[in-house]
Amino acid sequence: MVGAGGRGHRARQAPAGGAEPLGLNPVAGPAAMPVPSPDVSSSDVAAPPSPDDAADEPGRAVVRVGVLGCGNVGAALVQLLRRQAKVVEARTGLRLEVASIAVRNLARERDVELVPELLTRDSHALVEDPDIDVVVEVIGGIEPARELILTALRHGKPVVTANKELLANCGAELFGAADAAGRDLLFEAAVAGGIPLVRALRESLRGEPVRRVLGIVNGTTNFILTRMGEDGTSFGEALGEAQRLGFAERDPTADVEGLDAGAKAAIIASIAFGARVVAGDVYHEGISKITEADIVSAQRLGYVVKLLAICEQDETGAVAVRVHPAMLSRQHPLAAVRDSYNAVFVEGDAVGSLMFYGRGAGGMPTASAVLGDLIDAAVNLRKGTYASLGTFGRVPIRAIDETTAEYHVVLDVADRPGVLHAVTGVFARHDVSIRAAEQEGLGVDARLVFITHEAREAAVQATLRELRDLDVVERVGGFLRVIGA
Amino acid sequence: MVGAGGRGHRARQAPAGGAEPLGLNPVAGPAAMPVPSPDVSSSDVAAPPSPDDAADEPGRAVVRVGVLGCGNVGAALVQLLRRQAKVVEARTGLRLEVASIAVRNLARERDVELVPELLTRDSHALVEDPDIDVVVEVIGGIEPARELILTALRHGKPVVTANKELLANCGAELFGAADAAGRDLLFEAAVAGGIPLVRALRESLRGEPVRRVLGIVNGTTNFILTRMGEDGTSFGEALGEAQRLGFAERDPTADVEGLDAGAKAAIIASIAFGARVVAGDVYHEGISKITEADIVSAQRLGYVVKLLAICEQDETGAVAVRVHPAMLSRQHPLAAVRDSYNAVFVEGDAVGSLMFYGRGAGGMPTASAVLGDLIDAAVNLRKGTYASLGTFGRVPIRAIDETTAEYHVVLDVADRPGVLHAVTGVFARHDVSIRAAEQEGLGVDARLVFITHEAREAAVQATLRELRDLDVVERVGGFLRVIGA
Repeated sequence: MVGAGGRGHRARQAPAGGAEPLGLNPVAGPAAMPVPSPDVSSSDVAAPPSPDDAADEPGRAVVRVGVLGCGNVGAALVQLLRRQAKVVEARTGLRLEVASIAVRNLARERDVELVPELLTRDSHALVEDPDIDVVVEVIGGIEPARELILTALRHGKPVVTANKELLANCGAELFGAADAAGRDLLFEAAVAGGIPLVRALRESLRGEPVRRVLGIVNGTTNFILTRMGEDGTSFGEALGEAQRLGFAERDPTADVEGLDAGAKAAIIASIAFGARVVAGDVYHEGISKITEADIVSAQRLGYVVKLLAICEQDETGAVAVRVHPAMLSRQHPLAAVRDSYNAVFVEGDAVGSLMFYGRGAGGMPTASAVLGDLIDAAVNLRKGTYASLGTFGRVPIRAIDETTAEYHVVLDVADRPGVLHAVTGVFARHDVSIRAAEQEGLGVDARLVFITHEAREAAVQATLRELRDLDVVERVGGFLRVIGA
Repeated sequence: MVGAGGRGHRARQAPAGGAEPLGLNPVAGPAAMPVPSPDVSSSDVAAPPSPDDAADEPGRAVVRVGVLGCGNVGAALVQLLRRQAKVVEARTGLRLEVASIAVRNLARERDVELVPELLTRDSHALVEDPDIDVVVEVIGGIEPARELILTALRHGKPVVTANKELLANCGAELFGAADAAGRDLLFEAAVAGGIPLVRALRESLRGEPVRRVLGIVNGTTNFILTRMGEDGTSFGEALGEAQRLGFAERDPTADVEGLDAGAKAAIIASIAFGARVVAGDVYHEGISKITEADIVSAQRLGYVVKLLAICEQDETGAVAVRVHPAMLSRQHPLAAVRDSYNAVFVEGDAVGSLMFYGRGAGGMPTASAVLGDLIDAAVNLRKGTYASLGTFGRVPIRAIDETTAEYHVVLDVADRPGVLHAVTGVFARHDVSIRAAEQEGLGVDARLVFITHEAREAAVQATLRELRDLDVVERVGGFLRVIGA
């Protein structure tokens, strides 16, 4: 066990042979330098951890890690931990050791060499094992992950998880349980893979008036849209290529329909605004209906098409969270985020614009984020402290109908007198103001392309419904929201 | 004073009228939910903060902040703190109050409204004042900032600083003093303004094998290079524009000669590699000699010119840190960082490529970073804990001569037989291999443009010296290192 010094803890020492005196202060307390004599002003401030911590620990404290799951991320984590053990020890004074890994199938081949004694099928025993200090959950899905995490916390073990689905659905329950246990529940890897976004939002930007977060948080769809935009391939062809390259699942629904991005958006909104947002609060629309024509039309106007997660909080505190394809100006920093990369763009009143860019998935990048959290959890456990998110407030959730954007709409219409007049009349009746319009001939038909000024979604949807009912309108297509300054 | 619960601290309560019961758990401990009954496995783990913390604090704990300096950043911080006080209180249970501001000139007009009682000329009294809990240093420069920070730490006060010059020169002394005092010394704002880079490097990436960090960390020079690249203006014109817009000082030396970026690079290298690097270890070369011709030549070859801070650690642990203008592929994410924006690109073996983008300077963005640190310091002080960087190891520092890059070299030569042969012979003798060469006629002269394969700086400098001595070479120009994969 790892505990704060001086409270009767049983420190597990590293074996004598491996306990190199690295000459570094353990994080738990100042090892060598004397505490300055307290003066009046500081005597009632909590004393720093007492220097006899150091005397307790001639060797290094070992932190025993239990891992739930040994797929892509779990195997990468075990490899990374082995490789970086000495660096972590030098920087923190703690030796992280994988003590047990719970898997479903003991016989399956793994991406990492493991002695058979490390593996167990009994995940419930692992999270209750008094010899495990910290638990990493990388199995995914809601159950049994939820039950296992709750049990681990109840047993005083900090938990690191990469499970977006679970947090987007049961976050409040889990964070409450972590606070009740006084233990960390860390989840950097659950939102944007290797990108250190969660820590930035929950710590660095805790005082920042964040207004909006725009994210490209799904690598599969970004890869597909990049291929469609740069090579002119169709959605189906690009999806096939993504599947061949391992960027898309055989059943790509969760990615291409925006469900994966939606879960991440719920978590982002929760921590950015300190508000309770669950997956069910997120409007989502995927990219499977995006055509080559949409992308060409966007490009011609100076835009790229991206699947965006958009989290907004208005002056009243109400929050709107949605995922949909959007046209983004080619000048916007997110427009340069290509292939399977992810990036999150944060707009704050004080800090201005920030962007965080990197690998949103993949075994090693995700394992890197898990390792960062794991070190934090181990250091905190040793200090007898933990990080709390506080309680997320309940805020009004605005439906997509109440959000605003500019809109790109393409209409195929009959080419005869009065058509433009009839069509623009519909926009006007719904108070949707047109910023740009263009007409091109198509034989007997014509194509009208509109970009509106900022308008309410409900008004635009009502406009589209009425346009579809017009005799002269053959087809309403090319519907895309335009996002970004 | 703010202290950890249950150690006889004197909690300063908010006035009754202002103490709204927000229904949020203070971060210090679980207020409402009972601690689960400890079982055998957790009985020797440090207990979470005892629930009677909550009973101690029906109101909100007030944290009194002393600010050293009230320029651009100081004034913005005071404004931001006032605006965000309620949000911070809701999220942390702490009320941050500016209690005193030390300034040189009491009469000077400020960008923020202040009651005269807040101001003092006695900065030494401020850092010793028992009524000040946390100190923010935004005066800059080495003295008296160093002495004031050391005194504050000795008096048990955590310190937040935005002072890159001080940290790049005296970091080890200051971090040692913070560890000895058991108090935070936080400095997010010292490296990249509003961009949360320091926290990412020191926490999220603590276990990551970081190989290289490339940074655009000076807004003035990035603005100038952007203007030169996009508008074809000269260095002098672009500098004048930057000065008119307030992006450059009247004496721009520290910015344009790479000194400012060099100090930031020293800090980045220290925390990225856990190594002791000071400003004097950094090679620096500015942008004042970059010509329009250099930029046009780079663009023609698919590159942009940026002033880069480059921090590298090799397999042996040796570190090289340098600042110089460089050619960067137009495909590189840093190439899209325009105007006065900053960005830092981190390359790690596990996490892959990460980029952090935002405002590297300016009152409000910098104040945002200070506020993030200030909240952290207040929360930690209250919990009786602090974050340590550990001790930075001493590592070999590699001089620029030992680094490698590809090199872009332009030679004006006499246009006669055998010249190309003579010139390429010099490259070959120094083992510098040529990747691309191009010749264009200039009347009786000719211009040769070379890009080398990866080569050692010392070998390339020797090549240049010998080329300058060749009769047929009129001029060696267009010397730029090519960086990035």
